[in-house]
Amino acid sequence: MSVTAPRGFRAGGLAIGIKPGGTPDCAFVGSEDGAPLVAAGVFTTTDTPAAPVVVSRRHLAASAQQARGVLLTSGNANAATGAAGERAAWALCARLADLLGGTPEEYLVCQTGLIGIPFPLENALAGLGALPGALGVDEAAGLAAARAMLTTDTRPKIAIAEGVGYRVAGIAKGAAMIAPQMATMLAVITTDAIVEADRLQRALGAAVERTFNRITIDGCTSTNDTVIALASGRAALADDAFEHHLEQVAASLARQIVEDAEGGSRVGAIEVLEARSEEEALAIARQIASSLLVKASLLGGDPYWGRVLAEVGASRRGIDPGRVRIAYQGMVVCERGEDARGSWSPERHEFLQAAMREREIHVEVRLGRGTASATVLTSDIGHGYLEENRRTS
Amino acid sequence: MSVTAPRGFRAGGLAIGIKPGGTPDCAFVGSEDGAPLVAAGVFTTTDTPAAPVVVSRRHLAASAQQARGVLLTSGNANAATGAAGERAAWALCARLADLLGGTPEEYLVCQTGLIGIPFPLENALAGLGALPGALGVDEAAGLAAARAMLTTDTRPKIAIAEGVGYRVAGIAKGAAMIAPQMATMLAVITTDAIVEADRLQRALGAAVERTFNRITIDGCTSTNDTVIALASGRAALADDAFEHHLEQVAASLARQIVEDAEGGSRVGAIEVLEARSEEEALAIARQIASSLLVKASLLGGDPYWGRVLAEVGASRRGIDPGRVRIAYQGMVVCERGEDARGSWSPERHEFLQAAMREREIHVEVRLGRGTASATVLTSDIGHGYLEENRRTS
Repeated sequence: MSVTAPRGFRAGGLAIGIKPGGTPDCAFVGSEDGAPLVAAGVFTTTDTPAAPVVVSRRHLAASAQQARGVLLTSGNANAATGAAGERAAWALCARLADLLGGTPEEYLVCQTGLIGIPFPLENALAGLGALPGALGVDEAAGLAAARAMLTTDTRPKIAIAEGVGYRVAGIAKGAAMIAPQMATMLAVITTDAIVEADRLQRALGAAVERTFNRITIDGCTSTNDTVIALASGRAALADDAFEHHLEQVAASLARQIVEDAEGGSRVGAIEVLEARSEEEALAIARQIASSLLVKASLLGGDPYWGRVLAEVGASRRGIDPGRVRIAYQGMVVCERGEDARGSWSPERHEFLQAAMREREIHVEVRLGRGTASATVLTSDIGHGYLEENRRTS
Repeated sequence: MSVTAPRGFRAGGLAIGIKPGGTPDCAFVGSEDGAPLVAAGVFTTTDTPAAPVVVSRRHLAASAQQARGVLLTSGNANAATGAAGERAAWALCARLADLLGGTPEEYLVCQTGLIGIPFPLENALAGLGALPGALGVDEAAGLAAARAMLTTDTRPKIAIAEGVGYRVAGIAKGAAMIAPQMATMLAVITTDAIVEADRLQRALGAAVERTFNRITIDGCTSTNDTVIALASGRAALADDAFEHHLEQVAASLARQIVEDAEGGSRVGAIEVLEARSEEEALAIARQIASSLLVKASLLGGDPYWGRVLAEVGASRRGIDPGRVRIAYQGMVVCERGEDARGSWSPERHEFLQAAMREREIHVEVRLGRGTASATVLTSDIGHGYLEENRRTS
């Protein structure tokens, strides 16, 4: 099941000549009959957005949040490519309009790959001629799109949630670490619920804030990050649970991205509790999750809570270390800011050691000064990351 | 030449039983005759300072910036050790007073090592009995102190500057990455200039801000970072150049720390120019210098300016990428936010490639919106870092 699981969508994947050797480098998700869908988008907050981000933002505004589909290409980020880059992103949308109907402004485009290399537009425009024939409405077509948008992810990332009378589904490609230079997270979420553009945009924004914005792999902000939601309105009216289902799908995709971090072997779930506010909990969870030393400890499966406490202090929010409690895998290793293992039996030490060999490490940090909490997912940092990222070629 | 180069100081290094097997784990720098010196200190800004930071800050205040000497120990950070940790740090100072004269409040203490392990005070107090016999005023004694304060640094870090009629000298141990768990930068600077406590503190603060605070290895803030300055007043009056000489010594020590980053093979000098303010230049230089992707490119010797521009954008200061120029090793690779190498000859490409093999990579980023500038030194991130930091034992 993929983005074609909700009714009213078609999708597909193909090679259009951006990557050499006929490697799939293009995915498309759009309406089954080519008609406009209700669309929403959340984009990178960088001051150096890639051309497709600039163009997609503009198109969403120009079309009053209507879109017939979204194109996703990999192999070239079309970032730091100036006016020519923007013209290229627009030209891709114009080509889609020629092939599938509507106006260029009714198409969105996401791209990922190397920064600063002129986009090979002529190749891509020619290659897109095969797009209509590559589209389908079945499960295979949805899976083909999920596969074609990948870069060096090791597996497609797919999620689905069932509402009462409607579905929400999504596909994604991974973040940062995922590839030598394709440091970008892209996702497309589809639903056949009947939902207004404003509500879809609000729901998407809230879901992204609580999911994709709470994962970190290397802390680097991409020029191309984009999450698009498309609603066909072919099924039931979105009920009160719609936002929940959308967030479920986004949360699943976000987790799959961290689990598939290239060069990563472990997922760290950093949960900060008893903070004064969610903002505080989130900021501290992010700081811990981004720490290179904490990530190195994850790599080694080492419950070195001292590094976690050091990040709590480095956040400079006036937190009293004497009230901090830290647990790994549910076992309290630090109490009142000091080591709590002095009286542990050898069996207890062994139990923790065994638990630290698991694929997911849960780090719970209680600040002892409030009731707010937040969780950030992180990966360890492995040798593969360095090898993948040391050179672009 | 080391901290004993200025007149009026004695120093030494020895093993006091914190580390196993008689490894040197203790250095001392103090006045030649045991009398009080003018002292200044700059400490970590963390909310979870280690016990020696708490105690040294208190002693500087209690003694009106007079100190007879500073003790530096390694092997245990005495951080996250609660009230017992503070008592231990104070007890070390009390032992120094017994051995060398004066009151406990006239001694400062710096410690580095594992966080969260109770400090082995009894061993250390006994071991300190050998300290007076280990002190000397000659070059060898200064070098012994420089060596004894190291953790897994590969070489001692020593700097000296000659003023008119006085000297400034310093020793340091490395930052973060330097060791599995000794993620701390410590430095002691001595001078025989006649200088008041207020001026020494101001000069030290300014020098630290422009030197030690402009290096980054893994971006992790230590619980123990400390820089102490001691003035004996045995030589000439500090002249207008005193601040300059002090900064020179601090700058040299800071650079030596980055050059000796464990697992690091390259130094990156990230220079941001044409910013609106020094604060802006520094913030952006720090962001670039801390980027894991930029560090990975340094490891590979890859002039991938796209990652640098992406960090400029991610800083979210409204910088127009269309005005940004980026040069590696003095060669402009990005002009107006786009690749500038389209018209390069093969020879020019080869020249840059050769220049990227050097030990130090100069990355120059011109923002095109002001006249302020700042430079941050960073290291690449290598496989050795991961191996050193994955486990504490």
